[in-house]
Amino acid sequence: MSLIAAPAPSLTDKLTAAKAASRVLATATADRKDDGLRAIAAALVANADRIVEANGLDLANARENGVGASLQDRLRLDADRLAGLASATELVASLVDPVGESVRGKVLPNGLRLDQVRVPFGVVGAIYEARPNVTVDIAALALKSGNAAVLRGGSAAQQSNRVLVEVMREALAGVGLPADAVVTIDEFGRDGAGELMRARGLVDVLIPRGSAELIDTVVRESKVPVIETGAGVVHVFLDASADETWAVDIVQNAKVQRPSVCNALETLLVHRDAAERLLPPVLGALRASGVTIHGDERTLEVFPDGVPATDDDWATEYMGLDLAVRVVADVDEAMEHIARWSTHHTESIVTNDLATAERFLAEVDSAVVMVNASTRFTDGGEFGFGAEVGISTQKLHARGPMGLAELTSSKWVVRGRGQVRG
Amino acid sequence: MSLIAAPAPSLTDKLTAAKAASRVLATATADRKDDGLRAIAAALVANADRIVEANGLDLANARENGVGASLQDRLRLDADRLAGLASATELVASLVDPVGESVRGKVLPNGLRLDQVRVPFGVVGAIYEARPNVTVDIAALALKSGNAAVLRGGSAAQQSNRVLVEVMREALAGVGLPADAVVTIDEFGRDGAGELMRARGLVDVLIPRGSAELIDTVVRESKVPVIETGAGVVHVFLDASADETWAVDIVQNAKVQRPSVCNALETLLVHRDAAERLLPPVLGALRASGVTIHGDERTLEVFPDGVPATDDDWATEYMGLDLAVRVVADVDEAMEHIARWSTHHTESIVTNDLATAERFLAEVDSAVVMVNASTRFTDGGEFGFGAEVGISTQKLHARGPMGLAELTSSKWVVRGRGQVRG
Repeated sequence: MSLIAAPAPSLTDKLTAAKAASRVLATATADRKDDGLRAIAAALVANADRIVEANGLDLANARENGVGASLQDRLRLDADRLAGLASATELVASLVDPVGESVRGKVLPNGLRLDQVRVPFGVVGAIYEARPNVTVDIAALALKSGNAAVLRGGSAAQQSNRVLVEVMREALAGVGLPADAVVTIDEFGRDGAGELMRARGLVDVLIPRGSAELIDTVVRESKVPVIETGAGVVHVFLDASADETWAVDIVQNAKVQRPSVCNALETLLVHRDAAERLLPPVLGALRASGVTIHGDERTLEVFPDGVPATDDDWATEYMGLDLAVRVVADVDEAMEHIARWSTHHTESIVTNDLATAERFLAEVDSAVVMVNASTRFTDGGEFGFGAEVGISTQKLHARGPMGLAELTSSKWVVRGRGQVRG
Repeated sequence: MSLIAAPAPSLTDKLTAAKAASRVLATATADRKDDGLRAIAAALVANADRIVEANGLDLANARENGVGASLQDRLRLDADRLAGLASATELVASLVDPVGESVRGKVLPNGLRLDQVRVPFGVVGAIYEARPNVTVDIAALALKSGNAAVLRGGSAAQQSNRVLVEVMREALAGVGLPADAVVTIDEFGRDGAGELMRARGLVDVLIPRGSAELIDTVVRESKVPVIETGAGVVHVFLDASADETWAVDIVQNAKVQRPSVCNALETLLVHRDAAERLLPPVLGALRASGVTIHGDERTLEVFPDGVPATDDDWATEYMGLDLAVRVVADVDEAMEHIARWSTHHTESIVTNDLATAERFLAEVDSAVVMVNASTRFTDGGEFGFGAEVGISTQKLHARGPMGLAELTSSKWVVRGRGQVRG
């Protein structure tokens, strides 16, 4: 043992190590990667005490800093939650490996065989906040899709994340996979995040997860390609022909079932010919669930139990029990409102008019457009992906719920017998 | 007619107009878009005099500025070249429209019908240099895929581009399509390019085409998502078991057939066990075609008719009759060289060893990997796409030759009968 401690690795050292690990993962079989995932799942349970102890430091720090009870709860890890994380990691192991899947293939007229196959990105960077379970989630999804993960978590969970990464690295090394497939750069603080965003060539794609502000900062500052997982100012439009039961059920489900998530309803638009018929039962049910109605003038005439809406309401993702409501002249005015105020996440129309439904589906420019369904279905699990990396609101590469396939790029493989171009 | 001239539109005005036009294009049928393309083709021929006259101003300006003969030639438009551009535009009209194509679809367990369909990006921006035919190329590909095009061409072709855009806008308006589907922002100069790169929300994707320096600037400065079409430091590796005829033919074709393009060979790697057998015939044929050999020490021992290579040579895209040549110990050293120096465009191995071929195809991380074929086949036309937007060397969204499908995003369409989430 040397008396002189080795210098701590620089951020570039860590990214370079992750890049090297990614080359091993790129050609690792699904069996080997699944061994790694199962080892991580077992290690999370076996090291529960060590993880909960580190989490205790983060929780104590949060209390000292006067962090609210709900954020403290999101930060908390206990044996039950670690068992849940282990199960989720085992579930990822049970999914189909996207790597190597043929996307397209054919033989060219000159006899060249052409195949487009899915390959890992290489190194996937993630910048996220608060909940330490994201650390394991992203590492597991990256590993399954053959990518190394470089993680930059929130400072509130720094102790928890440090130990979670240690435990995952030990588990990987234990089954002969490179520990550097999972790397944290939390120790480099704010400068580290900036350096990560400039690490072209070492990091292949960057995924921000968290507040709109965090995502916006990464999108604006990153030189590395970003997959934007955005906010949801989500709309439902009740057309003149909407069925009352469907209208009540869909709006209630979209707003109340889980109001704090991005696919929850934020603005309800109602055709003026249906306002008197639909607003009382729809908004009455919401009020009974404790929802505050922010209505335009016409809405409050029909349903006075609300507060006046301003332009700010149309732009707001409440993420709570508030709803903006506006009466519109027709589907055109509804689509104009959506074009102006939507974040292009999910919009749904409730209607029985076929032509109107088809126009809405064709003309509304959002990641997910629906007819007669709750916006809460915009979700990787509900879509049958088995896992969700996030919900993309950008148009490049992935749009809407992202599964494992969205964590891959592709490569063209050309097989010839001496062909040259004429 | 007003005596007071209307103020010239600002850049934001023009982008906003393009965005509005893109909404019309997004739901235009393929027949309508093809009418527009055929009208553009006819107008290019009908307005040849007007276009050639404007081009004459650019050419005169180029001569005054002492621009070289080859660049002047690339800048030149005449009746023949305009007829060629018209044919190319008609060819785009004859291709299959990618918009509306179903990518995936299924019925979920709860009865929801889910379809992922191709939709246009919306507004595609292009920043490019020199050749005015790119102005028509990009506008035609964007129109076919339902996108509005915002064009920022090189100042050397500004007069030509201005008239080409005028002619295309008139043609579109003549068939009832929005003229603002094609917009130039050349009049805003360098500031305009910067503003375009910051126009998030108005421009959906930006494609730089031109020099490595131009592409690098756009990638680093743009806040709008970019599809990078990169440089090609392209490699061929001659394995120990390479067939001599294939080695000679493939290297000759890859280097000499059209040395100025991105899929041309720049560095040849040779297995040391094959150096004495293969280098004399392979390099002899290249020398006979006027290629200068930049060889490492071992290469020059076997084939002395060359100059010593330095690290600069490994990093250089010559785009001319020069070739870097290195003798390597084995396929591992070849792949290490490629990992270090390649721009990840195209690499090809010439071999008869199955295991080595499969390792090369699996482990080399480039957009296109080949066995026993010329690197010149990396091309949208050769791949059967009918048209080529460029060759992407990034991993997000599109990798390798990009056809019309790569100019689209997708949208999830969900059809229900009142479903809500449990």
